Amino acid sequence: MNHELNFWVVGGDMRQLRLAQLLSQDGHTVHVYALDAGGELLSGLIQEDHLGSIARADCVVLPLTVSLGGGLLNAPLSVAEHPLAPILDRLSPRQFLCGGRVDPDTRALAQARGLTIHDYFAREELAVANAVPTAEGAVQLAMEHLPITIHGSRVLVLGFGRVGRITAQRFGALGARVSVAARKFDQLAWAQAMGFDPQPLNHLAGWLCGYDLVVNTIPAPVLTRRELEDLKPGCLILDLASKPGGVDQRAAGELGLTVIWALALPGKVAPVTAGAAIQTAIYNMLQELGR
Amino acid sequence: MNHELNFWVVGGDMRQLRLAQLLSQDGHTVHVYALDAGGELLSGLIQEDHLGSIARADCVVLPLTVSLGGGLLNAPLSVAEHPLAPILDRLSPRQFLCGGRVDPDTRALAQARGLTIHDYFAREELAVANAVPTAEGAVQLAMEHLPITIHGSRVLVLGFGRVGRITAQRFGALGARVSVAARKFDQLAWAQAMGFDPQPLNHLAGWLCGYDLVVNTIPAPVLTRRELEDLKPGCLILDLASKPGGVDQRAAGELGLTVIWALALPGKVAPVTAGAAIQTAIYNMLQELGR
Amino acid sequence: MNHELNFWVVGGDMRQLRLAQLLSQDGHTVHVYALDAGGELLSGLIQEDHLGSIARADCVVLPLTVSLGGGLLNAPLSVAEHPLAPILDRLSPRQFLCGGRVDPDTRALAQARGLTIHDYFAREELAVANAVPTAEGAVQLAMEHLPITIHGSRVLVLGFGRVGRITAQRFGALGARVSVAARKFDQLAWAQAMGFDPQPLNHLAGWLCGYDLVVNTIPAPVLTRRELEDLKPGCLILDLASKPGGVDQRAAGELGLTVIWALALPGKVAPVTAGAAIQTAIYNMLQELGR
Amino acid sequence: MNHELNFWVVGGDMRQLRLAQLLSQDGHTVHVYALDAGGELLSGLIQEDHLGSIARADCVVLPLTVSLGGGLLNAPLSVAEHPLAPILDRLSPRQFLCGGRVDPDTRALAQARGLTIHDYFAREELAVANAVPTAEGAVQLAMEHLPITIHGSRVLVLGFGRVGRITAQRFGALGARVSVAARKFDQLAWAQAMGFDPQPLNHLAGWLCGYDLVVNTIPAPVLTRRELEDLKPGCLILDLASKPGGVDQRAAGELGLTVIWALALPGKVAPVTAGAAIQTAIYNMLQELGR
Repeated sequence: MNHELNFWVVGGDMRQLRLAQLLSQDGHTVHVYALDAGGELLSGLIQEDHLGSIARADCVVLPLTVSLGGGLLNAPLSVAEHPLAPILDRLSPRQFLCGGRVDPDTRALAQARGLTIHDYFAREELAVANAVPTAEGAVQLAMEHLPITIHGSRVLVLGFGRVGRITAQRFGALGARVSVAARKFDQLAWAQAMGFDPQPLNHLAGWLCGYDLVVNTIPAPVLTRRELEDLKPGCLILDLASKPGGVDQRAAGELGLTVIWALALPGKVAPVTAGAAIQTAIYNMLQELGR
Repeated sequence: MNHELNFWVVGGDMRQLRLAQLLSQDGHTVHVYALDAGGELLSGLIQEDHLGSIARADCVVLPLTVSLGGGLLNAPLSVAEHPLAPILDRLSPRQFLCGGRVDPDTRALAQARGLTIHDYFAREELAVANAVPTAEGAVQLAMEHLPITIHGSRVLVLGFGRVGRITAQRFGALGARVSVAARKFDQLAWAQAMGFDPQPLNHLAGWLCGYDLVVNTIPAPVLTRRELEDLKPGCLILDLASKPGGVDQRAAGELGLTVIWALALPGKVAPVTAGAAIQTAIYNMLQELGR
Repeated sequence: MNHELNFWVVGGDMRQLRLAQLLSQDGHTVHVYALDAGGELLSGLIQEDHLGSIARADCVVLPLTVSLGGGLLNAPLSVAEHPLAPILDRLSPRQFLCGGRVDPDTRALAQARGLTIHDYFAREELAVANAVPTAEGAVQLAMEHLPITIHGSRVLVLGFGRVGRITAQRFGALGARVSVAARKFDQLAWAQAMGFDPQPLNHLAGWLCGYDLVVNTIPAPVLTRRELEDLKPGCLILDLASKPGGVDQRAAGELGLTVIWALALPGKVAPVTAGAAIQTAIYNMLQELGR
Repeated sequence: MNHELNFWVVGGDMRQLRLAQLLSQDGHTVHVYALDAGGELLSGLIQEDHLGSIARADCVVLPLTVSLGGGLLNAPLSVAEHPLAPILDRLSPRQFLCGGRVDPDTRALAQARGLTIHDYFAREELAVANAVPTAEGAVQLAMEHLPITIHGSRVLVLGFGRVGRITAQRFGALGARVSVAARKFDQLAWAQAMGFDPQPLNHLAGWLCGYDLVVNTIPAPVLTRRELEDLKPGCLILDLASKPGGVDQRAAGELGLTVIWALALPGKVAPVTAGAAIQTAIYNMLQELGR
């Protein structure tokens, strides 16, 4: 990206606002729309009340998530409601249009107008980049809720995908003794090569009583009542898995275990970093398209 | 320590209560006094309402801090007030008596009765052990207050004593680029050997604009208005130094900088770990005395 | 594996001998054949001069590599030559037969007898496990050939697959500043998440003069004359890529650059660890087959 | 140091030659004397055959070690012998004169001429800086002599001073499980805070059989026959302690244990880094003297 572009950043939360700032700092012209409550973070950005000039944008960035339903733009920083249709009406296929976690309804709205919404949330590099603030969020939550230090604690990480790897690494770096439970032999080999104690995922019960913290990253029922009964009192459970999560919440409650189900950590714990990750994904998409 | 002892744990906060638990788990008989609000953490401990049998204790553990003045025991978990004199009256020199951060008044009270209060807070190993929860507390505060991840951030640690070393190491382990400012050449050599960027402490101004976080550990005015003016907007300042701290709070306020002055982090962020550190110091003292 | 098996470990180098020892230490009965020069490492193993009882083996382990051609067993620790045919003649399909890097000729020999040779070298977990001694071998070579410490050096790792990841991590752990060049955006995101400086692989020339060490893991021409000319004098090049390697050796020679092409490091630098990795792969195969 | 000086670098080995280069790269004028066999490393330096102009030097740097006896300069890269007296005769007290590990005879020679030789080897920051190449040398030796990877090995470090700390850290960073044996409680607390398993030094025997590698840094008899008998066969011993070392070599030999007594590692494994450490110490001394 060595030329300046005309960006419209439309809707979204603090992450989207930070993204607008970062684009502006890179020398691009950045218009913001439906980001009204940004306060001083809006300085340097061109605040738009009307869609008049959006047709001249090179790139239009819709938020992550684009829409929460009803044909409306997801715009928590704006008091007004913003239907997507009039926005899309003004765009043409030669403009680069992107958004995060694009739902079928929005996609259909775009297609009806001959437009493609490039989904940056589907980019692998964004998923990897988001694993870092997710892991830090897990560390923060563990620090806030445990009466012991991470240093010297015993931590079990369930799953060894993107989030599992980076989470295990962070806890280990702070001095925890980290075990990793995974199903596949190659994941267990990776866990061992990175210095963690590998454990087969299908034989957890009977081996759980030593942990101070269990971090789940698997969106499937891995901590059922049987496993939960094996945890020691005071063991903290962090569930980072997307719906349906991996913990039998009811059993945990009955057993008096604290479970924190933490979703969408990147935008909450590090909106600037999360915005930068979206920026990189957008730049990569533009580069692939030769723009 | 391969024999069981009779402990009295007297006064103090959650740390002291956790210490009592840990001693009990090691097989000692543990009486607690003036630790009334301990709830279920008291199970397994012998709760005393009277001082009757304290004369039979092998070891009497006063809290950290022993007294906040007025001749009274520091006992935040008790609604009643507990003068120290009647407690000390019942003790004899053959008993091991210890406490943390013993003030001159309390020391005089003890000496008047022929007693010595061994100060575990003066033990170097306790100071080192406490540096770990202090460093983790600094990480937690940084995570809570910064809109970026620690990973990839630029951190400056002022001072390279116990807390400075371990704090720098923790932030580096999480992926921050860490600089260390110190006065002595050998401290700068240590900083470099441990992988940090060494900076002379007396030439900070003019080199500060790149940092996202500054952690001070020096109890002397190192961040004066001159240095503070050089920080970028949004830079977070954590002051871990004991009184008088190292930051010109007034100048920082006028410049709109966020300063968090965090004292006594171990007991707040990790009372169990802090209690265990006191336990180790007590065991070491007993070993040195041949008990 | 909670029952004892009858193993025959046939041919191979020190790795194979160490594997035999490890199997024996796990309680299995272990026969060795064509491993004559093992010296005191043979104690506890049953040395066989004839193939008589191989038909009673539960598992027969051929070496890594099984054969160097000519229908002969790869048996560097034996003075005699050992054709594979008579060995295979004595085996039946109910026995578990395995070997590493099985060539088509040997595979045909086996199939003609109704036998399957399970190739442990094709197992992903073995490849991951072998990346650890490979990375350590790279560190050792760098230490032996550079006049500076790894600490403080600038290292470029080309490629971010198994070996690239673990190699980058090891150099970083020792205090090097590590850059990683890769082609894919998600690999670059991984490199950044793990604390390395990500670099696009296709724009190396012009950015290479700062490195003290370049470690290549890509089996394709990535360090051509153009890139080599950009390296500083004294820069060391380690090529860990399998044939054809990634360095223009001729150009490097003309430029006076030292290139070390290091293949098969695991067996050379850590035969016990390499034997243990094969053992794990064999156990995993047996478990998958329900034996 | 923001002004150029006239340096004479006199005698010494590769380290001294690298030091001369580094001083030259910083913009100083550098004369070399009795460093004849330097080959192309001499380019850019002013080679002197006579002492004629040494009187005009601002700084004269004698080697580490200055003299091996007999009033002669330690000059292994020169075929000629160089008595120290005629060199010192030409110097005056206003010049900065320094050397490493200055022996009493040489010191007397200087004092007789009204000169002070500043000993850079006595500087704490040099000792710390040298601990890094010493630790890397230990890692290299362990890699060369052990049949297992450092990753996953069990390592015991005896002593927790400069070399012990950095050595323990390096082995731990490569994935070893590291125990540290030390005498003082605060050293054990440091070891624990840095993630190592602390062990009391005076109760080693009986707890040694699990280690693959023992690294000694204590110049006192800590590994006597009693401790050596407790090590497992194949355990490697690295003795980094200066004379008299810490290992009963005779007993080790009788027990068939491999002991490597490695002295003066920095100059051997990383002469450039070792030269840079001397350079820093010289700069610091000049700064303290206000030059």
